[in-house]
Amino acid sequence: MSLPPPPAPIGFSCPVPLSHRTEITVGHGGGGRLTQELIDRVFRPAFANPALEAQHDGASLCLPNGSRLAFTTDAHVVSPLFFPGGNIGTLAVNGTVNDLAMCGARPLWLSAGFILEEGFPIAELQRIVAAMQTAAAVAEVGIVTGDTKVVERGKGDGVYITTSGVGVIETPLAVAPGSIRPGDAIILSGDLGRHGMAIMATRAGLEFESAIESDCAPLAAPVQALLDAGLEIHCLRDLTRGGLATSLVELAESAKVAIAIDAARVPVSELVQGACEILGLDPLYVANEGRFVCLLPAAQAGRALDILRRTAPGGAPVLIGTVSAGPAGQVTQRSIIGSERIIDRLSGEQLPRIC
Amino acid sequence: MSLPPPPAPIGFSCPVPLSHRTEITVGHGGGGRLTQELIDRVFRPAFANPALEAQHDGASLCLPNGSRLAFTTDAHVVSPLFFPGGNIGTLAVNGTVNDLAMCGARPLWLSAGFILEEGFPIAELQRIVAAMQTAAAVAEVGIVTGDTKVVERGKGDGVYITTSGVGVIETPLAVAPGSIRPGDAIILSGDLGRHGMAIMATRAGLEFESAIESDCAPLAAPVQALLDAGLEIHCLRDLTRGGLATSLVELAESAKVAIAIDAARVPVSELVQGACEILGLDPLYVANEGRFVCLLPAAQAGRALDILRRTAPGGAPVLIGTVSAGPAGQVTQRSIIGSERIIDRLSGEQLPRIC
Repeated sequence: MSLPPPPAPIGFSCPVPLSHRTEITVGHGGGGRLTQELIDRVFRPAFANPALEAQHDGASLCLPNGSRLAFTTDAHVVSPLFFPGGNIGTLAVNGTVNDLAMCGARPLWLSAGFILEEGFPIAELQRIVAAMQTAAAVAEVGIVTGDTKVVERGKGDGVYITTSGVGVIETPLAVAPGSIRPGDAIILSGDLGRHGMAIMATRAGLEFESAIESDCAPLAAPVQALLDAGLEIHCLRDLTRGGLATSLVELAESAKVAIAIDAARVPVSELVQGACEILGLDPLYVANEGRFVCLLPAAQAGRALDILRRTAPGGAPVLIGTVSAGPAGQVTQRSIIGSERIIDRLSGEQLPRIC
Repeated sequence: MSLPPPPAPIGFSCPVPLSHRTEITVGHGGGGRLTQELIDRVFRPAFANPALEAQHDGASLCLPNGSRLAFTTDAHVVSPLFFPGGNIGTLAVNGTVNDLAMCGARPLWLSAGFILEEGFPIAELQRIVAAMQTAAAVAEVGIVTGDTKVVERGKGDGVYITTSGVGVIETPLAVAPGSIRPGDAIILSGDLGRHGMAIMATRAGLEFESAIESDCAPLAAPVQALLDAGLEIHCLRDLTRGGLATSLVELAESAKVAIAIDAARVPVSELVQGACEILGLDPLYVANEGRFVCLLPAAQAGRALDILRRTAPGGAPVLIGTVSAGPAGQVTQRSIIGSERIIDRLSGEQLPRIC
């Protein structure tokens, strides 16, 4: 398959700002600019506290006796419920396990809250629950508490699952956006776009739909291996809604640094690249559920790559870029032909209900 | 208002057992017998672990360093979203705070996962979020992490909120159904049925709808006061879905004991009693969001009543019954005229989407 240049990311489009909107739109759930505006306008002013201000995948907390915990939550509304490589249950468990891992925590316990739509087949619920248990066993976490509610037909969509997680932070490091420093290397743990394109191909009924499997996988083991090796991990971020591009913009803005990546180094499989071209999507913005970036001092990048080659799902980590002092919040991508362009966060309309 | 004898509770009806059902029904979310069958058939076999087997309002867990934590979750789908005495946000915060308190824990942190329906007014979301922050401040907990997803019109119902909570268990007691002993006194913290009837009256458009306010309130302070007094608390249970009757049946079955209560002692306000009669409901089965039972040695009941009179919402605690050795799992109620009847758990159809 020949590879023409990718289409311009829709992250560049300029939606109506939230301040002019009075109703929730699908884009507010996309994980991009509209989601950020909703958080900044509605949630952060109300719930203001230091844990939220850290703007990380979960909260890092300290018990009265000094133990450090990570605590995180994700609502899962993926459509379709079943997709190549997993289902909403796999996603709900791995998504929360991964958010804990991104805090530098060892995941211990999960909760699961189910919102079931009247008429949903109990056999499908059993398949989903079985997948959750398998994923929990692989990630070595227990699903220790839960809740079930039922809503009438037309008030849900089969099943929504909100998982929360608690993990213990055993490293003395503060693994968070605020620890990112100029000079840090940015390592991507594997190739991009499999989860998002597995969902989109299934939805669109594309002929290659079964060929692209979601990359949905737990990331606790590779993170633990990096920490066990004594590497000075500054920040970790899994590349879910909004993809690599949005994640890097969030990190650059939180840490008030500039990030530059080299497009030629970002691995994308031919199948994913082809599906993205057909659907007019940029793989940089497509969601992943088993890929992350690790930011750490450049001198330690080689050791991190060695470790991730052995432990990360996909097994093909790449050094994709570096952090510099400024301009604060700016992410640039050098293209294959050497030109540079600024990367913006996803505007929010690209891939609704991807997770 | 004259008070005729209450109607027979619908807990006595005999629904089709889950094993003959292939689809989720609204009754599976009612918190009664069908919910229990769903848990027993689908969730417990898959997720089997000691924390789940305790069948309590939340999980009691032990960190590697020996610290004891409580962890709990609740999905909130109440309809209508706004009701006399609160809204879905108040309910989401207090519900999770109370589940932690029922584990004997001091609530510390909450997470909040929002599932928003496209078209939901942002101004209403702001009212809900403001109510959450107020409730969190009153209960002295932080909302430290969250997530937002959006679903298309007709795939949700305004907003669903799943809250999870983490608290620290500082008491050496095991506050759980397994600690209940024959001879324990059962103290009810206040009058029954306000939350459920506030919702039902609003839904039905009854003329007294604004006169009945939900009892939605945090219960952490009265629980802490009981623990601080050094009382030997065996078990605590808040009386949400399924009401007092279903909670007592769950406790009697878990602890393999018999429970007897005296109907004449169970306080129900005239307004709630009247509304129950109009709608054909038994207050014993109506949901509460700020009431709980405390089971402890009978010799300590007087001190517990004194403490709850000063600290419990409603301020009118009552000794309603006692625990005996058997028959295991049986709950009986002595009526005002002295006859006894067996109380069953809610069958599941009474009050959908009450929380």
